[in-house]
Amino acid sequence: MPKINDLKLENIKALFPEDFTPDQVAKGQTLFLKEVAETMHEFYGGKMQTIPKAGYYGFNWFNVWYSPGVSKVSTDIRDNPERSFDLSNRGNLVAVVSDSTRVLGDGDCGPSGGLGVMEGKAYLMKYLGGVDAIALCIDAKGEDGKSDPKKIIDFVKMIQPSVGGVNLEDISQPNCFEVLDTLRDECEIPVWHDDAQGTGCVTLAGLINALKVADKQIGDVRIAMLGAGASNTTIASLILQAGGDPAKMVMCDSKGGLHTDRADIEADKAFYKKWDLCQRTNPGKIDSIEEAMKGADVLIALSRPGPDTVKPEWVSSMAEKAICFVCANPVPEIYPHTAKEAGAYIVATGRGDFPNQVNNSLCFPGLLKGALLVKARKITDKMAIAAAYAIAGTAEKRGLTPDYIAPQMDETETFPAVAKAVAMQAQIDGVARTMLSGDEVYAQAKKEIDESRNLTHHLIEEEYIKKPTPEMLEACLEKAIAQVG
Amino acid sequence: MPKINDLKLENIKALFPEDFTPDQVAKGQTLFLKEVAETMHEFYGGKMQTIPKAGYYGFNWFNVWYSPGVSKVSTDIRDNPERSFDLSNRGNLVAVVSDSTRVLGDGDCGPSGGLGVMEGKAYLMKYLGGVDAIALCIDAKGEDGKSDPKKIIDFVKMIQPSVGGVNLEDISQPNCFEVLDTLRDECEIPVWHDDAQGTGCVTLAGLINALKVADKQIGDVRIAMLGAGASNTTIASLILQAGGDPAKMVMCDSKGGLHTDRADIEADKAFYKKWDLCQRTNPGKIDSIEEAMKGADVLIALSRPGPDTVKPEWVSSMAEKAICFVCANPVPEIYPHTAKEAGAYIVATGRGDFPNQVNNSLCFPGLLKGALLVKARKITDKMAIAAAYAIAGTAEKRGLTPDYIAPQMDETETFPAVAKAVAMQAQIDGVARTMLSGDEVYAQAKKEIDESRNLTHHLIEEEYIKKPTPEMLEACLEKAIAQVG
Repeated sequence: MPKINDLKLENIKALFPEDFTPDQVAKGQTLFLKEVAETMHEFYGGKMQTIPKAGYYGFNWFNVWYSPGVSKVSTDIRDNPERSFDLSNRGNLVAVVSDSTRVLGDGDCGPSGGLGVMEGKAYLMKYLGGVDAIALCIDAKGEDGKSDPKKIIDFVKMIQPSVGGVNLEDISQPNCFEVLDTLRDECEIPVWHDDAQGTGCVTLAGLINALKVADKQIGDVRIAMLGAGASNTTIASLILQAGGDPAKMVMCDSKGGLHTDRADIEADKAFYKKWDLCQRTNPGKIDSIEEAMKGADVLIALSRPGPDTVKPEWVSSMAEKAICFVCANPVPEIYPHTAKEAGAYIVATGRGDFPNQVNNSLCFPGLLKGALLVKARKITDKMAIAAAYAIAGTAEKRGLTPDYIAPQMDETETFPAVAKAVAMQAQIDGVARTMLSGDEVYAQAKKEIDESRNLTHHLIEEEYIKKPTPEMLEACLEKAIAQVG
Repeated sequence: MPKINDLKLENIKALFPEDFTPDQVAKGQTLFLKEVAETMHEFYGGKMQTIPKAGYYGFNWFNVWYSPGVSKVSTDIRDNPERSFDLSNRGNLVAVVSDSTRVLGDGDCGPSGGLGVMEGKAYLMKYLGGVDAIALCIDAKGEDGKSDPKKIIDFVKMIQPSVGGVNLEDISQPNCFEVLDTLRDECEIPVWHDDAQGTGCVTLAGLINALKVADKQIGDVRIAMLGAGASNTTIASLILQAGGDPAKMVMCDSKGGLHTDRADIEADKAFYKKWDLCQRTNPGKIDSIEEAMKGADVLIALSRPGPDTVKPEWVSSMAEKAICFVCANPVPEIYPHTAKEAGAYIVATGRGDFPNQVNNSLCFPGLLKGALLVKARKITDKMAIAAAYAIAGTAEKRGLTPDYIAPQMDETETFPAVAKAVAMQAQIDGVARTMLSGDEVYAQAKKEIDESRNLTHHLIEEEYIKKPTPEMLEACLEKAIAQVG
């Protein structure tokens, strides 16, 4: 049996038998991570805990934190509800809400099924953004047994008094549109749909830098988009708001190009966002992705897993210095090396094992931290675009190349920079309850993020969080190898 | 100005000017605690945070805690939803849910108004019981602007997939009855109403020991009860289940004795619990608390704050070795020294500055820990009664006296003992999903509680939780003194 020498889980590929093909190794790597996930989630009983952040210097402090002292907190908030942001956890707390109907790649997993993912989000939020978060996977089924968007909306409105923001996640289409749009209008706290807006923000960040590397302007480029789900329609919307030319944009879904002849889209009110794009883009009524890509400068695909969804010859037909975002998971619509052989200049994917990962984790921790620091009432599209520019700017400072258009997750200066940009834009857009300077936001965000990371590392070093044994990981590896073989 | 020498907040009374009357000192003490609460809640921005409980040994661990590894957790739970208790936070997580319509002594404080109290509960739950908890104050107002019990019920059902138990709190009458009874029937996780069941449990514990000290039997004693709210009706129900004789029990509300002539109670379906007691108790149709107390062995008052609600002459009319629970807050229905002068043998109150505090914090942390350890589907009344006997037994081991009938909060052996008793009874009652021996429950509960306390102390010692300065506390004292003067 191969041995796992440390806990870092680096270079997993080398752990597999030498006679494994590259495909077997790739498959084994994913299986290994899944086995480790199952074993470790059970070992720790989940991923997040609650602990005091307030001091305790003897039992008399319960007279402060509870009755009779706490009464003043109750009446202060009663007399001025906005004091709840200062006097309770609310000011730094985000609810990660899902109905578990579209859990990452696994579809509808039942009401509890998204807990692993949502707790993962809470982990990232705390570790990368210094934001407290609670994972709430809800049973939103109506009497017909289907998830009811009205129930999700009701739930978020009911929980609003306890949190400073809401991160919606893994809600299936088309419910997610109604849920987000209603809640953005009707809530007095930020409601963020990470699948759509988060992906939109980081894709825009990558596009901004890719265009710099390719020396092209956003208003000049022709953009072909494959897939018309929540993510890609949001990406299109953000690109257009950031200066993209709708006349040069063509989006395709599984039935062809989006344009004003698409009566099927017009007929279904749930897909009003797609119909809006039908009306605004693709004036030439191009009807296939193959056509759309001819001479295009940019491809943005969030469609079916590949690697054969996008053909090399389509990439070859693109303009000089073509930019391809092929972000299907787990396998991109075309492998980066294939796309490059076909002439692509820059290729980005959703995966961390290729260059140019388009990774939502670059966005939401800092974005929510910035929104919370100024007690924002909303997250406007302009705030998301400001976050995209901040992400892009962080990578630019390190020096852009065709293989480096976005920061890595461990380039931690990204998160306070995003917080600052978002908080500033919130004040410009009139949705901030608190006014802070850019320096103040940056310093406070950086301090809280550093504290959060330091605390996590400290708990691990001091073994308040127990280490798994190498044997546990080796058993996972053994299982993974057996499943491949 | 008097000086605050340490952070323990001990002997607060001595901090006030010498020329203050005892009444002024008492008032000043409460005002001081309220000022400290406001200042400290703002200093810390609430009381609880979320942090990882699972290890992190480099960025590759996000491939375990998030995509792609976490996928196996999603599909495991999809295929067997009960796995959510093992693979997510759910197994050790309680939601503290309130509509903030009856926040401790402060009434309706608006949807966010209960956050201080609910976070306090979460603090106690973690520190005393090793249970993770999230404070959820919800907006349950219907279209008429009033809190709608149906909305609270819906909310708890929706959140059920994410938590192992629910603690209801500070929900006004009569909504609280419908909410609890519906949820106890219809949920597959424990739903605990601490105001009613928790108070019932600790009062029963105190009564069990008081009867031992007075050498009386529960089935023999005459019991007069003043107040017929959620707490006292639940206390009555638990006492009857624990062997009390309904023919010897008389309960009075503000209109007189509860009995079968009370058409006003029969007419209002929301008060079905009171009507049940009308039918079962007080066969002699006694119509006043004064009458009820004549010759009674026990008074249990949870009614209007005193100190003149219960008259000394009523206490004098009771039987030999009379036992008085006078638990109104903040001032008991009669002061203990007055009751003792009038002939009471044992007096218990809700306050920590008198002997024999009836304190819910003795019950819920251990009770919920026990229920979670065996993944209970419900908390039966028998489980609550088992908890009461465990609390009583812990005090008995230390040696009972008329001034010591219940454990103090720092007698920490109470909590695992309660957990064990509750978990055992859950298995007997057929509501446990997991079978464990008493020793296993006790050892596991003690381990987790110790870890939770050690972690809190460690964070304070290492200043991950910052200390307040003496100046902050002194400013609070100055404000309190000014308000009294």
